[in-house]
This record gives sequence, C-alpha cells and structure tokens, in this order.
Amino acid sequence: MKKIFLFYLLSAIFLILFSCNSQNNSDEMEIDKALETQAIAWNEGNIEKFMNYYWKSDSLKFISKNGVTQGWTATLERYKKNYPDKEAMGFLSFQILSKQPIGKNYFVIGKWHLQREKDELGGYFSLLWRKINGQWVIVVDHTS
Amino acid sequence: MKKIFLFYLLSAIFLILFSCNSQNNSDEMEIDKALETQAIAWNEGNIEKFMNYYWKSDSLKFISKNGVTQGWTATLERYKKNYPDKEAMGFLSFQILSKQPIGKNYFVIGKWHLQREKDELGGYFSLLWRKINGQWVIVVDHTS
Repeated sequence: MKKIFLFYLLSAIFLILFSCNSQNNSDEMEIDKALETQAIAWNEGNIEKFMNYYWKSDSLKFISKNGVTQGWTATLERYKKNYPDKEAMGFLSFQILSKQPIGKNYFVIGKWHLQREKDELGGYFSLLWRKINGQWVIVVDHTS
Repeated sequence: MKKIFLFYLLSAIFLILFSCNSQNNSDEMEIDKALETQAIAWNEGNIEKFMNYYWKSDSLKFISKNGVTQGWTATLERYKKNYPDKEAMGFLSFQILSKQPIGKNYFVIGKWHLQREKDELGGYFSLLWRKINGQWVIVVDHTS
C-alpha cells in the first residue's frame, strides 16, 4: 500500500514539475518567436508590425540614454522619427543572451545590431515581457 | 449575526490590504535608502561601500552600451577602471522615476547625473532589486 502511495506521489510531483517546465518552455518559445517576428517586420520596413509586440498602453516604457518615452503611441513616434525610411532602418538582428522568469513576467537580455548601407549601429537591450490578453508583449524596453 | 460576520470579513480584508501595502512601503523605503547610501558612498570615493548594494554573486549582471559584465567582482573592477580616482568619480546624484513590484522583485527606473570638475555625465538606469538574506540588492543593473 505504502509503495503504491509513494508511486502516485512521485508521479504527481513529476507531472507538476514537467508541466511547469513545459509552460516555461512554451513561454520562452513564444518570446523567441515574438523577437524573431519583430526583426522580420523591421527588415520589411514595417514599424507598425514591429510595434505589435509592445504593450498597447500608456504605461509602456521605452528607456534610452536620452530619457524615458512613456506610452505605445509616443514609442511608435520615436521609432518613426529616428528611423524615417527603409534606408535608415537597415537590417536588424538580435541575439538573446538570457531569459529569466520573474513572477508572471520574463526578463530578457540581448544584443542588437543594425547594419545600414553607410554605417552600423548596435548595443544591448533588457526587456520586461508580460502576458497580456494571452499574448507576450514588452512592457519595459531599455535599449542602450 | 450576518452583520457581525460581514464586519469581521471586511476587517480581515482591510487588515490584509493594509499589511500588504505596509510591506510594499517598507520595501520601497529600504530601496530608497539603499540608493541614497550608494550615492553617499560614491561621493566619499568609496566604491567598495557603493558595491554593498549589488548582489555578491557571479550571477549579478551589469549591462551598458558596451556589453554585459557578469558577476560582482567583474562589476567592481569595471567601476574601478572607469572611475580610477575621486576626481573621475565626481559628484553622483540619482532621481528615482518609478518603482514597480514584480513578483518578489522590484523594478526601479531612474536618472543619474555625475558632476565632475571638467565635465558632466548622465543618463538613465533600470535596476532589478531582490531581497537576498534579508537585504535588498541589485541583481541586474542596466545603465545607459
């Protein structure tokens, strides 16, 4: 009897751990996919599509050396001003360095690189992701 | 009888909310105090004391435009290299812009300014704080 109980207990623990791990894996895959889709959208010159993975809220924060841009609309305008055409947008690529679940959020650190005809830009980002209405979106972006 | 039950229920809810709020306030005050102490230590030219509020771990991350520095010792060395003496360290001041509890962490966004004899530096930071062994420490610092 004891053995059967132990078997069920261990199975239950295993299933719980497995299901938590699967959930994490699935969340991480969704975030990877989102970043991949963002880079594709950027390289098509489509900033609106790129912006789909930012929280559509006045509470979205975009931090850079020059300040904190508050809200989705202001962040879109900032991108449009800094990258007015396809030439300025160049070819964007990301490299994810770490992904860490924090409460119901994910904290993602990575490297970005922008290859343009005449120059190249690059740096690092840290992103706070949250699942809102079933979709993972960036709620804070710090890009340097 | 119903009224008494309702009274106790509402009192209990009030006490829970009040205690959560007090905990948040106390955590936020501890983080404010930590940042204040860091600035004082910096302005005394004491980088080791300044570093007391960073997680003493190889997992600490310091992100800047130039890369990700991994670990407490490497972060200390980075500071010592970039700010070799009191003149280079100048006078540091912080302005906290937002503090947000995330799971068991706090995400703090702020502005920094360094006044030196010959120039001034400044920018923005986002800090991930965690309470480790009873003390709030920075586990990720992104400074731009």
